[in-house]
Amino acid sequence: MEQWSFPPKFDPNYLPPSGSRYWFPKRETMPAAEREKAILERLKLVTRYAWDHSPMYRRKWEEAGFHPDQLKSLEDFESRVPVLTKKDLRESQAKTPPFGEYLCVPDSEVYHIHGTSGTTGRPTAFAIGREDWDSIANAHARIMWGMGLRPGDTVFISAIFSLYMGSWGALSGAERLRTKAFPFGAGASGMTARAAMWLDLTRPQGLYATPSFALRLGEVARTEGYDPRQFGLKVMFFSGEPGASVPAVRDRIADMYGARVIDCGSMAEVTPFMNISGSAETDGMLLWQDIVYTEVCDPATFRRVPYGQRGTPVYTHLERTSQPMIRLMSGDLTLWENGPNPCGRTYPRLPQGVFGRIDDMFTIRGENVYPSEVEAVIAKLADYGGEHRIVISRDGTMDELLVRVEASAECVARGDEAQATLRPSTGKALQTLLGLRAKVEIVPPNTFPRTDFKARRVIDDREVFREMNARLQD
Amino acid sequence: MEQWSFPPKFDPNYLPPSGSRYWFPKRETMPAAEREKAILERLKLVTRYAWDHSPMYRRKWEEAGFHPDQLKSLEDFESRVPVLTKKDLRESQAKTPPFGEYLCVPDSEVYHIHGTSGTTGRPTAFAIGREDWDSIANAHARIMWGMGLRPGDTVFISAIFSLYMGSWGALSGAERLRTKAFPFGAGASGMTARAAMWLDLTRPQGLYATPSFALRLGEVARTEGYDPRQFGLKVMFFSGEPGASVPAVRDRIADMYGARVIDCGSMAEVTPFMNISGSAETDGMLLWQDIVYTEVCDPATFRRVPYGQRGTPVYTHLERTSQPMIRLMSGDLTLWENGPNPCGRTYPRLPQGVFGRIDDMFTIRGENVYPSEVEAVIAKLADYGGEHRIVISRDGTMDELLVRVEASAECVARGDEAQATLRPSTGKALQTLLGLRAKVEIVPPNTFPRTDFKARRVIDDREVFREMNARLQD
Repeated sequence: MEQWSFPPKFDPNYLPPSGSRYWFPKRETMPAAEREKAILERLKLVTRYAWDHSPMYRRKWEEAGFHPDQLKSLEDFESRVPVLTKKDLRESQAKTPPFGEYLCVPDSEVYHIHGTSGTTGRPTAFAIGREDWDSIANAHARIMWGMGLRPGDTVFISAIFSLYMGSWGALSGAERLRTKAFPFGAGASGMTARAAMWLDLTRPQGLYATPSFALRLGEVARTEGYDPRQFGLKVMFFSGEPGASVPAVRDRIADMYGARVIDCGSMAEVTPFMNISGSAETDGMLLWQDIVYTEVCDPATFRRVPYGQRGTPVYTHLERTSQPMIRLMSGDLTLWENGPNPCGRTYPRLPQGVFGRIDDMFTIRGENVYPSEVEAVIAKLADYGGEHRIVISRDGTMDELLVRVEASAECVARGDEAQATLRPSTGKALQTLLGLRAKVEIVPPNTFPRTDFKARRVIDDREVFREMNARLQD
Repeated sequence: MEQWSFPPKFDPNYLPPSGSRYWFPKRETMPAAEREKAILERLKLVTRYAWDHSPMYRRKWEEAGFHPDQLKSLEDFESRVPVLTKKDLRESQAKTPPFGEYLCVPDSEVYHIHGTSGTTGRPTAFAIGREDWDSIANAHARIMWGMGLRPGDTVFISAIFSLYMGSWGALSGAERLRTKAFPFGAGASGMTARAAMWLDLTRPQGLYATPSFALRLGEVARTEGYDPRQFGLKVMFFSGEPGASVPAVRDRIADMYGARVIDCGSMAEVTPFMNISGSAETDGMLLWQDIVYTEVCDPATFRRVPYGQRGTPVYTHLERTSQPMIRLMSGDLTLWENGPNPCGRTYPRLPQGVFGRIDDMFTIRGENVYPSEVEAVIAKLADYGGEHRIVISRDGTMDELLVRVEASAECVARGDEAQATLRPSTGKALQTLLGLRAKVEIVPPNTFPRTDFKARRVIDDREVFREMNARLQD
């Protein structure tokens, strides 16, 4: 039966009728305004719960002058409740190790421990309660049902099982959805070729991975003599990287495997992290607001920006009791919309997924520019060779933007004229689509190195200018 | 409540009284003869179930002239039911992919897929049913309770989460036992140092790993500035390698961490693989016969050998419905005993754990010799340098055994006389303890290379002799 309460209490044996597009039809398709009223009621319960159980929240809210009784509207929520940062979590855990002053269930109720990688300083430990684990599994099963996966399907999970929450979250959903879960993992030597062999042996309907790994797996599979399309995959869902919402990457994976490619995933702290996820019929990512209430906010004021605008997602759990996140600031960058969705769900949508970090933003002649926007424009050019660099410099007192763009091998083969055309067409596209005046330099194919990780595409030369200027003034 | 039936139906909320040494006191401490009567009844049900649900078993048994109705005693079982080999499983899966003609539940009931590594040919897929997963978790929780782990303890699992069943089995037990499960994993670069950091942060009571990894982790922890004893571990349990029953390895780990070291683990196919496992009070491994009925058999006849003798374990599931193994031949080598156990459980015991493979055996002058026996004798010599080689050759028509033994650095430092004594004392020990006449050569410390994997210590030169002889007769 369809349920919505806090704390959540889901029927572990519930499954929707097999013909249903939705796991919880009412919650997924109710009018948005009606849902927002219900969310407000949940927020009252969740903030009261945190006030009663978490010294961290109580202290933080007392300092900000907020009390759960003050909550009468979503505007109260965004204006009165201060945002929480990852730094707050780290500090709370340093003070009260290992789980911090926001573990709101008895220690004995902790079911799983996971954590952040801790590559930059003190890691954060995730303590997930037994009942929360079931709620997470239910949420993920719901969303995976929405992707088109069904009980009895095989779901192959090929991302590392360790601290990384992605694999564990996908597994919990696959288990609850009553699929055959194949937690294959990744990360050790020789596993990619073996993954290809097992895909061939077991012919799963679903695959979870990171986009980079799916591309590599497809290439390794071909080297091993398999055609990835013959694996018969129906749905491939991704998190951990923004790739699956980047049209070029998404289409390449879809074409390689002949499968539907779906983007999902907010933050490990937010688990059920599939709270932002596409569906079988809707591209981009939906905000499953009844699971995690998401506000796309101005990164300065942390008030919601209007639909159609860019901002940073701020997340609030509506179904977690063990380490509930209330207004956790992501620092990610997205744009939200509120049109009708092909799948009929009445959730806001992120048409381009999560496409950057707010701290990637640079300012040129007073305009805020995100590298992802420049990339989106350039990637559409027919003669683009696949890599580029953005160089910001200063000519006298003016910021100057130089975009160095690789031509494609085909463009070079077509001769000088094709290359000569690429330069002005790139400049015009940047001007038209971003209102950005930039110098453009066309460089030969493969000028810039490729990486499996995040490419550093922005070079800010103004620093050199500033340093020089500072030295002259000494 | 304590339960024993087939198919099993365990109460998912059962926990023993906190002061109890046993999870299921009756099943664990009942007189062995009474248990054997009950096992016979279970075997009747299990064989009938397999006959009804598995074309593979039915065909195999029909060929051998066995029918479940014939089962009146454990002697009937061992004399009438043919053993099953890993080759049988591979062939059945090749014929009926992916799970073979011994998946005895509907495909839609499969909960998890795992498999063998498949490094040598076609891998075997494990399809574990939803109810079996619960039974496995119950069995492992029972056995981990017997190790001294308790609800609320933290259990750190540091072995790879992939095809390898060890980690998944330990996790299922930790979850069912209501510990805080920390599935950290292993296998990717940089994880060992991070494991040390997390052990320091979370101070778990239990740790699961392979013995080699525990040794490496301890060394890395020291390099990173931690004292492994400060992690506060209480119980370390191991599978995947025989090390934890080898006194020298066991004691080194116990000393390094200041924890109780417990050996467990039969075969992935047998999962619940902790069916052979030590306990908080009993060294070596107990055969938890009411979970998996284990016969230690003569590897030629597959009839049980008397207690006190060596043989190969043959396993029969009493609590699995999805891919039940009935008389699965392990090919491992062990010795079983049936004295009273310090923990009071009335199970047979493997005092030296599983110490080799039957196919490691060689024959010298008509006597069967296992390399592990030679190793056990040599490892006890005070002046042993840590490595040795066994060379089998032929002098005329007689097999000759040469054992090349490294002297320790201390022995060399003490001078010629100490070294001169080592040779006859080694020969005498082999003669006295194994009845084995061998030539002994003492070599300097570090003559032989070390390996993280299984060392190849036996060199059979008779092949050269045989080939030469064959050529002369052509």
